Amino acid sequence: MPTSGYLAVAAVATLATAVSAQTFRRSAACPDLGCIYPPDQSTFIAGQVFDIRIEVQAPVNGSSPYNNGVPSPDFALYIGGKGADKQEISTFYDLEDPPVESYNFTYFEDLFARDNDSATVVNVLARTYRHVNLFNPGEYELKLKYNGGSETVAHWTVLPLAECRKAKNVILFIGDGMAPSMVTAARLLGHKTVNGKYKSRLQLDQSEGFGMQMTHSLDSFITDSANSATALMSGHKSTVNALNSFTDSTGKPYGAPKFETVFEMARRLYNAKIGIVSTAFLADATPAAVVAHTPQRGAYDYIVDQFLDGGAVAFNSTPQNFSWTQWDGPDVLFGGGGKDFVPKASNGNVSKIDRFLNRNYQFSTTNTSLHELDNSKRALGLFSDSNLPTWLDRHVYTDNLADFGAWNSDNKTFTAPTTDVPGLKDMTLKALDILHARSKADGTPFMMMSEAASIDKAMHIADYPRALGDLLELDDTVRATLEHLEKLGLRDETLVIVTADHAHGFDVFGSVDTEYLTAQKTDDAKRDAVGTYLESGLSGYQVPQGVNPQNQTEVVGPQGPGFPVTWEPRYTAAFGLAATVDQYNDFKTHPSSRATSLEPLKNGTYRASLEDSPDGFFISGVLPTSNDQGVHSLVDVQVFSWGSGSELFRGMMDSTGIAQKIAQAMDLGRDKKGDLGVKKKEHKGKQ
Amino acid sequence: MPTSGYLAVAAVATLATAVSAQTFRRSAACPDLGCIYPPDQSTFIAGQVFDIRIEVQAPVNGSSPYNNGVPSPDFALYIGGKGADKQEISTFYDLEDPPVESYNFTYFEDLFARDNDSATVVNVLARTYRHVNLFNPGEYELKLKYNGGSETVAHWTVLPLAECRKAKNVILFIGDGMAPSMVTAARLLGHKTVNGKYKSRLQLDQSEGFGMQMTHSLDSFITDSANSATALMSGHKSTVNALNSFTDSTGKPYGAPKFETVFEMARRLYNAKIGIVSTAFLADATPAAVVAHTPQRGAYDYIVDQFLDGGAVAFNSTPQNFSWTQWDGPDVLFGGGGKDFVPKASNGNVSKIDRFLNRNYQFSTTNTSLHELDNSKRALGLFSDSNLPTWLDRHVYTDNLADFGAWNSDNKTFTAPTTDVPGLKDMTLKALDILHARSKADGTPFMMMSEAASIDKAMHIADYPRALGDLLELDDTVRATLEHLEKLGLRDETLVIVTADHAHGFDVFGSVDTEYLTAQKTDDAKRDAVGTYLESGLSGYQVPQGVNPQNQTEVVGPQGPGFPVTWEPRYTAAFGLAATVDQYNDFKTHPSSRATSLEPLKNGTYRASLEDSPDGFFISGVLPTSNDQGVHSLVDVQVFSWGSGSELFRGMMDSTGIAQKIAQAMDLGRDKKGDLGVKKKEHKGKQ
Repeated sequence: MPTSGYLAVAAVATLATAVSAQTFRRSAACPDLGCIYPPDQSTFIAGQVFDIRIEVQAPVNGSSPYNNGVPSPDFALYIGGKGADKQEISTFYDLEDPPVESYNFTYFEDLFARDNDSATVVNVLARTYRHVNLFNPGEYELKLKYNGGSETVAHWTVLPLAECRKAKNVILFIGDGMAPSMVTAARLLGHKTVNGKYKSRLQLDQSEGFGMQMTHSLDSFITDSANSATALMSGHKSTVNALNSFTDSTGKPYGAPKFETVFEMARRLYNAKIGIVSTAFLADATPAAVVAHTPQRGAYDYIVDQFLDGGAVAFNSTPQNFSWTQWDGPDVLFGGGGKDFVPKASNGNVSKIDRFLNRNYQFSTTNTSLHELDNSKRALGLFSDSNLPTWLDRHVYTDNLADFGAWNSDNKTFTAPTTDVPGLKDMTLKALDILHARSKADGTPFMMMSEAASIDKAMHIADYPRALGDLLELDDTVRATLEHLEKLGLRDETLVIVTADHAHGFDVFGSVDTEYLTAQKTDDAKRDAVGTYLESGLSGYQVPQGVNPQNQTEVVGPQGPGFPVTWEPRYTAAFGLAATVDQYNDFKTHPSSRATSLEPLKNGTYRASLEDSPDGFFISGVLPTSNDQGVHSLVDVQVFSWGSGSELFRGMMDSTGIAQKIAQAMDLGRDKKGDLGVKKKEHKGKQ
Repeated sequence: MPTSGYLAVAAVATLATAVSAQTFRRSAACPDLGCIYPPDQSTFIAGQVFDIRIEVQAPVNGSSPYNNGVPSPDFALYIGGKGADKQEISTFYDLEDPPVESYNFTYFEDLFARDNDSATVVNVLARTYRHVNLFNPGEYELKLKYNGGSETVAHWTVLPLAECRKAKNVILFIGDGMAPSMVTAARLLGHKTVNGKYKSRLQLDQSEGFGMQMTHSLDSFITDSANSATALMSGHKSTVNALNSFTDSTGKPYGAPKFETVFEMARRLYNAKIGIVSTAFLADATPAAVVAHTPQRGAYDYIVDQFLDGGAVAFNSTPQNFSWTQWDGPDVLFGGGGKDFVPKASNGNVSKIDRFLNRNYQFSTTNTSLHELDNSKRALGLFSDSNLPTWLDRHVYTDNLADFGAWNSDNKTFTAPTTDVPGLKDMTLKALDILHARSKADGTPFMMMSEAASIDKAMHIADYPRALGDLLELDDTVRATLEHLEKLGLRDETLVIVTADHAHGFDVFGSVDTEYLTAQKTDDAKRDAVGTYLESGLSGYQVPQGVNPQNQTEVVGPQGPGFPVTWEPRYTAAFGLAATVDQYNDFKTHPSSRATSLEPLKNGTYRASLEDSPDGFFISGVLPTSNDQGVHSLVDVQVFSWGSGSELFRGMMDSTGIAQKIAQAMDLGRDKKGDLGVKKKEHKGKQ
């Protein structure tokens, strides 16, 4: 057998578990019964503020019970430079030990246990030390001693300081779910080839720095948008669903150990002006990740409060009795999700819009008023009830705008018809104008995060044309932003980065003669319409309908260069279907999108419905039938960059490298106490 | 409708065709009735030798007949620098016009025509001018005048000369079919993470230069291995199935207009020592592409002859009455495919092995004898009847070696048991020793092409573990090669490039609890074993069987670091299945591979057989049921490079850029007549 003869190279003390399960795990990054957060292998920007949490766990039952479920009340955490003497945390930081938390949680050890409804119960004792930092670059070792003689060790690294500051301002664009294969496909749709040569290129194809990043989570190899954004914006990997915090075992959306993002650091150190732009609802993971902290991305009301008041804000009516980085709101907050800003039961019937207005924010709800905003004042823009409509629906299939709700100033809800909605480019360019004016006024830098969110949202429901339309819009936005920076005289001092948070399983594998497919009567005959290799031919999206794709006349479509001439050619691209649920597919662009690709049945499973695509053939998915959507995938994603500091973004890197390199370019690392230092006795034993 | 309002920006004269078809096309890169090869948009290395062919076509019937199918006998080709006066080709090159060819061909205009068996007949007149070149960098314009007043224009570019020579030697590794997603998945299998940090990396992750390339064909957006290798090795895009030549309309495997590869150029200009290494049968497209020229990759006997005697060699008994670059064989030729080197009916019962032996090549057929070869002499190595066994079968599932045939010196066939077969690393390192010794002896440089062929071959039949095993072997080979170059003192003067020719639709989208899957009775219940996002967990391939993947002990497997510890963990990776045929899949590694994943039925279609994977669930494919294999996909592929000149390989590039940049690094471009010049009156009107 292939595993005979193995030898252990670097043994780390670990309990032998009888169960080899991994679908579920007891706790994030805690294979032993003693947990340290941030965990082993964590990397910090010098001076980055964070919390420390230690947990001692004792399972009552299951495959590995401990001491009848009674954790030892004697536990302590030690810290020191690698190879140097260690001190207890409270001594190292001159803090009082916070009180001990005591609670329990349950989990299933594997799928068999889940089927048998056979849960394992775990008792926990824990402590959290708040608002600390490490200033000296180098290696640290932490040791948690617990349960008699057990030890858990964590190795931490504090990154070296930057040699110099390369970039004054930073703009981070995120193409949500934008796999390399999708960039390739978007090029095929938006640009024409003549004899194998592209006559025009994506802006992304012309980056000054180029690399890729690995997106996997702290404790699973597939990420979601929350923990992937966390890595990009803070330099720490975390668990699926977590925003800028580690997922402790409490199950609560607040109070988890957290860490600063580079946006929070830049505000703290430089009074940087901060802009957040997204085509998603603003409480969604990616925009939230700029400043919010919670292990549960679905805590929308909490996230909206954190936009305005930062990480120490109360969770609903539960005060957070600890300090955090000062934060009094972003300079620009543009996107969708108005529904999370109006009074409702879950947020105590408070108008968040009013809270922003009371802090002197301007308020915009249409593209027209967006362009009329005063560049010198902070601004909140809410352009839809939830996600903004996709580029394809805003420009081509405009009947679908009826599915979206704009601000109704009469009743202060998002229920008015959508007739005047901005796109990513409108919001990004205006945000840039405001950030520039405000940062120029007091000589401070600015940072912006701008997200093309519906690449991912459309990919989840296998609506490839809508995903690719938003990708082309992102490319157009990047182009326009670089031009605008040039015009404002900011190009040389601004670092622009475009990357994805994670990928989706996707590729193009040929073309489809949709006329032929529609005329066939059986699934098998329909599949004959798929032309591969030589028969894949050329992009039908760059010639007018009904014209041979080999026609070499270069035509500009109604939305200008860089976009398809038609979305309904006879010969479409055969989009690959990795990691999907069942579907009927006819490979054509559908005039109206769908909320989900599937019909739910009474038993909670989903089946494809022929109605969804009457001309199509059936394709079985590979996911559990309880899924109603496709899922993310593993592939590395590209990193494109321009401007000063772009040379840092070359080669293969980890997702955490994005934030760490931004910090390096902007010189955010500090090796002295700076303006924060260690708190003396401010923690009075409260939580 | 979305296409209203378009405007033509750069009109190129083209006939309006009534049919908008593109699955099939009349000719490659010839939308008009007058064809120029090399076609419009071609890019040349200065001094690169090539042929020029012009065709005038006249369809008899179909959607666009011309003049009752009679092409005008008066046609001529003119050439000149852009904006300068043009001359007829024979004047420009001081050649006599070759005789006119006259023939016809048929094709189907689209799938409906194919179903109706309704072919279009086309009559052709043509001429080919052989063995010419262009030396002066800049833009050229060619004009073919024909059929009364019609004109076809081609714009050609001759690239600038290199400023200096950066690399003396070049090693080009090709991971056939190696999509970025596969590199990501291989890392997951071969390397361990602890809390999201990889403890070791692929060699590919540590490249000095990093970029990506677009792989599309001349006239279709999906490539095969022949025309993609052509682009990489010559800088010209061509049609699917074509090797270093354009696909003319004759339908013959010989005589098509061709062009030099950078390997041929280096031999001609520097007397470079050339090595060809592959795990495929050597007549396969990728190794063939180093030196062979034919529009039909399946002309194996012709290809084997070209290995030894170059592009002007006879096609079977048909002499080629033209000259080409002198070529008297590679210095090293190692791989599989012994069946194409022994006497058989198709090759006139000639032993190609004997032909090599008569030219003083050493001959090796085992790993042992490979290591014993004399480094000062040329060598032919044939280690299998066809493709070499995969890494997984050579190291883990060795029973499968019974499917392969080694050299039987008694009867001089490839029918002996396979007990002593080399891998890619063995062949590559020995090739390097020979090339180094021979190039050192006369102060010349060397070039090597080394291919990991079965990444692609395994991907075609959805055997992901075998594909990934060969990818890890490639990574190990690159690592060992860089170390060996260092040891030989060649590291600073050698450019090493690793890239793919094209991609396959593939990604990982979660993990699979194979124990749970096997225990379930229905397809739907089996699909519940797929764990996505948080439930994807960690790589089960880096811990011994039966151990929890969260176990942080670093273990080295039996084949050393950079390879899985086990290929049969309980929790496997859920490999995505874009662009596949029907299959049953249980996501486990199969101890024996399969020739094809499908059972052929009597009517020429293919269905999946439960026997193939008795524990698995059914997944319908998306390809025509006449396909018995999965197909290539569109995604850009990565370019990794080290050493002097690696800085040329950054950013997004076209596939043709690989050869062009090699030429630039090695200073292959020439702007004077050099040692070739223009032939004067050597073309006596023969073909």
